[in-house]
Amino acid sequence: MSRILYELAGADPARRFSPFCWRIRMALAHKGLEVETVPWRFTEKDRIAFSGQGLVPVLVDGDRTVADSWSIACYLEEAYPDRPSLFGGTGGLGMARFVNSWTDGVLHPGVARLVVSDIPAWLGPEDQAYFRASREQRYGMTLEEVTAGREARVREFRKDLQPLRLTLRAQPWLGGAAPNYADYIVFGAFQWARCISAFPLLEAGDPVAEWRGRMLDLHGGLARAAPGHEA
Amino acid sequence: MSRILYELAGADPARRFSPFCWRIRMALAHKGLEVETVPWRFTEKDRIAFSGQGLVPVLVDGDRTVADSWSIACYLEEAYPDRPSLFGGTGGLGMARFVNSWTDGVLHPGVARLVVSDIPAWLGPEDQAYFRASREQRYGMTLEEVTAGREARVREFRKDLQPLRLTLRAQPWLGGAAPNYADYIVFGAFQWARCISAFPLLEAGDPVAEWRGRMLDLHGGLARAAPGHEA
Repeated sequence: MSRILYELAGADPARRFSPFCWRIRMALAHKGLEVETVPWRFTEKDRIAFSGQGLVPVLVDGDRTVADSWSIACYLEEAYPDRPSLFGGTGGLGMARFVNSWTDGVLHPGVARLVVSDIPAWLGPEDQAYFRASREQRYGMTLEEVTAGREARVREFRKDLQPLRLTLRAQPWLGGAAPNYADYIVFGAFQWARCISAFPLLEAGDPVAEWRGRMLDLHGGLARAAPGHEA
Repeated sequence: MSRILYELAGADPARRFSPFCWRIRMALAHKGLEVETVPWRFTEKDRIAFSGQGLVPVLVDGDRTVADSWSIACYLEEAYPDRPSLFGGTGGLGMARFVNSWTDGVLHPGVARLVVSDIPAWLGPEDQAYFRASREQRYGMTLEEVTAGREARVREFRKDLQPLRLTLRAQPWLGGAAPNYADYIVFGAFQWARCISAFPLLEAGDPVAEWRGRMLDLHGGLARAAPGHEA
């Protein structure tokens, strides 16, 4: 049975930088499931039209097609119950929604305001035009204006990581004694930045930086092997 | 076997307003465990010295004494494994730490900046002096200065609840399909405010306000029955 994951890529097909796709790459590795990953670009909406929507990740698992990272994670947990659990029980499934909401609503916007102007350089001409136009409209300013002053503003970003830091001072993973989907949700944001920007988000010695190092080593160093900057 | 919970109280012993104590009151009800609650005031450090520290909640469960809300929740889960689970599995236990860290680091400071000046009126003279002095030193300003302009600032507070709101738009409880300790952690903050302040933290129609209403009804309306303001 074939298993295919459509992933956002840069002009170089090996440059995979979507935080949502990274959640699923790590989740598949956690479940020990082989997957063929297919590079996809922002402007190739037609190529994933079969999924009924226009965003990646899209997982095609045999005859099942699932889009949206949260839906894919829930699908994997249900379809492969005998593999290591992504949520560690019903309570974890419930609370992972909160981790997901915090990541989407606080962490991602924070990361984007520090690195978004570094993204276009990795894209082909068509995607570059699309990305710049759509994001600059959303922000109401140029991408360079969005990230201006980031060397000073990164201190605020690091303060906003305090809930993460307090958690990781008390235990090695967001999932507790072992990593689970909560870790993959949050890690996706840092891996996104690592793949497209050299800007240092974290300070050495920060428990969040130490956890990121452990995440990069997980599953045979899957995330560390991906083309990106030193983290 | 006797089970006693030392809880923060105002001059009126029925006015119980500690967010940390509310976490445990709800957790005990969740487990279906009877408890005798004992009112305690900020300045009565001697009365809980047997616990080896000076803060409530303190649970005395037969011959076991446990302080600190997180430690008490973990104790209850371990000591009463056949009662309904507080965490819903190991993943929930891990992620509840994140909910706890977000609540302590983001939600509590946000609530405090809106209602802390309403607390002294509920305290006896000794506690009033202690509370005002210790908190004003921490803030570096009077309690009235801390909450000044709250009618305008509450909008920022409500924005900071977005991770909570997104979660509760997708599912009825933080715990998922049923409430668990994640709900009690977060609810404690709203119950704290409800017990000491008439200031409206939430707008009608907010999914967070609707969830708070469901929380007030839980376990036979335990939290709604406590002396407090309309929420």
